[in-house]
Amino acid sequence: MIASPYLLFLGDAPDPLAAKVAQGIKDWRPEAAVGQYRMEGCKADMGLKDMSIEEAAAAGAKTLVVGVANRGGVISASWIKVLVEAMNAGMDIASGLHNLLRDEPQLIATSMTTGRTLHDVRVPGAQFPIGNGKHRSGKRLLAVGTDCSVGKMYTGMAIEREMVKRGMKATFRPTGQTGILITGHGVPLDAVVADFMAGSIEWLTPDNEPDHWDVIEGQGSLFHASYSGVTMALIHGGQPDALVLCHEPTRPHMRGLPDYELPSLEDLRDLSLTMARIVSPDVYVAGISVNTAALTEDEAHKYLQETEDRMGLPAVDPYRHGAERLVDALK
Amino acid sequence: MIASPYLLFLGDAPDPLAAKVAQGIKDWRPEAAVGQYRMEGCKADMGLKDMSIEEAAAAGAKTLVVGVANRGGVISASWIKVLVEAMNAGMDIASGLHNLLRDEPQLIATSMTTGRTLHDVRVPGAQFPIGNGKHRSGKRLLAVGTDCSVGKMYTGMAIEREMVKRGMKATFRPTGQTGILITGHGVPLDAVVADFMAGSIEWLTPDNEPDHWDVIEGQGSLFHASYSGVTMALIHGGQPDALVLCHEPTRPHMRGLPDYELPSLEDLRDLSLTMARIVSPDVYVAGISVNTAALTEDEAHKYLQETEDRMGLPAVDPYRHGAERLVDALK
Repeated sequence: MIASPYLLFLGDAPDPLAAKVAQGIKDWRPEAAVGQYRMEGCKADMGLKDMSIEEAAAAGAKTLVVGVANRGGVISASWIKVLVEAMNAGMDIASGLHNLLRDEPQLIATSMTTGRTLHDVRVPGAQFPIGNGKHRSGKRLLAVGTDCSVGKMYTGMAIEREMVKRGMKATFRPTGQTGILITGHGVPLDAVVADFMAGSIEWLTPDNEPDHWDVIEGQGSLFHASYSGVTMALIHGGQPDALVLCHEPTRPHMRGLPDYELPSLEDLRDLSLTMARIVSPDVYVAGISVNTAALTEDEAHKYLQETEDRMGLPAVDPYRHGAERLVDALK
Repeated sequence: MIASPYLLFLGDAPDPLAAKVAQGIKDWRPEAAVGQYRMEGCKADMGLKDMSIEEAAAAGAKTLVVGVANRGGVISASWIKVLVEAMNAGMDIASGLHNLLRDEPQLIATSMTTGRTLHDVRVPGAQFPIGNGKHRSGKRLLAVGTDCSVGKMYTGMAIEREMVKRGMKATFRPTGQTGILITGHGVPLDAVVADFMAGSIEWLTPDNEPDHWDVIEGQGSLFHASYSGVTMALIHGGQPDALVLCHEPTRPHMRGLPDYELPSLEDLRDLSLTMARIVSPDVYVAGISVNTAALTEDEAHKYLQETEDRMGLPAVDPYRHGAERLVDALK
């Protein structure tokens, strides 16, 4: 568990997109951030109070979260200086960067002298079991996609938010770096060793109360040649009761694979159900989540209506219009 | 690459089954072993010449291969003594044990003083790329199974042997510890980090001559809740032209999963083709490989004939009766 509240470190972000992690925290756990720390030239802004390390510590920040991607594959000296200052002020550091905090001698040294923790959320923090496929109590929902990066995490967060709003018992279960930094816990599935993938998801979503929902963050796509194995393990380890199909309607080809077309939502529905039924015979598709960010409001409504008519399932953009109808569709 | 020829170390194997790795080498690469080393109480025998370390070195052994599973999760002092002696006599050591050679201080020390190599084949030896799904030249065959441990490796080895016998260009591509120790190369797929699984198989089976066959060792099963992600990555990374369906007809439930029934061969055919077509649109099922070890000769023939009639595909036990008809069925 990563201790909150956070100070969001935006560094010298060259553009808002580089601060995707900070944006995710701002969008889904705004109460978890006491402020933001921006360096000279920073082009990202979460609209939070700009704070020095000293001010953030005084405001109760327990962890500095690196909310921005680094440039050039190194953690720069100017960043290190700030992270050291934060540890000296009593904060832990959490990061999802490819370059690990623990590979930086100065951060290690400061961690030892201050007793603060370095959270590299790209590195699995536990030794996971082999999956056992045993039936678990409680309910689980999984978002599956026609492609990578079509909005599976945002879909899950929106569904959890709607469930909590209704007083339902629900826990978002992150399986990627951003989700883990947003919520402070989870499994970085893409970094888990092959044999333990399904087991890590069983570990993440254990037995629970009969009316409790684990909303599991989806990863990759069964149709994505690079990452389908990760998705497969997520479906079998997750043992979902309900699936939500996720799609981005303007993508010309599978992400990173110019030779591969996206599958249809029908293909995604059929293959996902076939796969999920192996571990969860009564699994059903609750609805469809469309990332309409690239469409106008009119285009979005038209696309959603057409999709809904064609598929016979509620089709919404849960980030744009809310997840009510997806939650309504759960049994 | 693990240097051959080998000295097969059988240690104090409590029964023949514990020497599965040695048996695999004996069955598929007998020319790779100059002899066997047995300790007091050893209950396994490959029928090779018993040799001391000194004799094996004189006979040209380049690597001592640990061909036996250890007991109690430790590499015993009596084993270490022999392995040290072998390194001092000029041999490398290769092992697929869970306990790593490199975790034994005495072996590390001897490795440094002698300059010999410790091959822990459970640990991937390369940094693999992310899979790119690009079409590759050459042909690839993959064995897929209704379950784990139904004979996929033996099927692949038998097919490669038959191909080589016919003068076809063929390479067996191991993806598990035993296969790697048998052939001296390969990828231990179950130990690869999730994100790189498909890429590791693309790396293992690169572009090749148009009439060359890579015979890829299968792993797990799409229907096995613990390992389906590994199988999925193998199908998408392997980009197979041809599939062989593997089955063991007497198994009461999925291996290690008492609550799960085995799928039918029809289910395996349909799901495997659906998955493989995503990366390899013209993929076909060449035939069926049945592990009939638990059946009498009469029962085996009856089962194979019934399966062949039902599925409309050649059905053979390639280890028992040869792989001719599977190779005949390739386009």
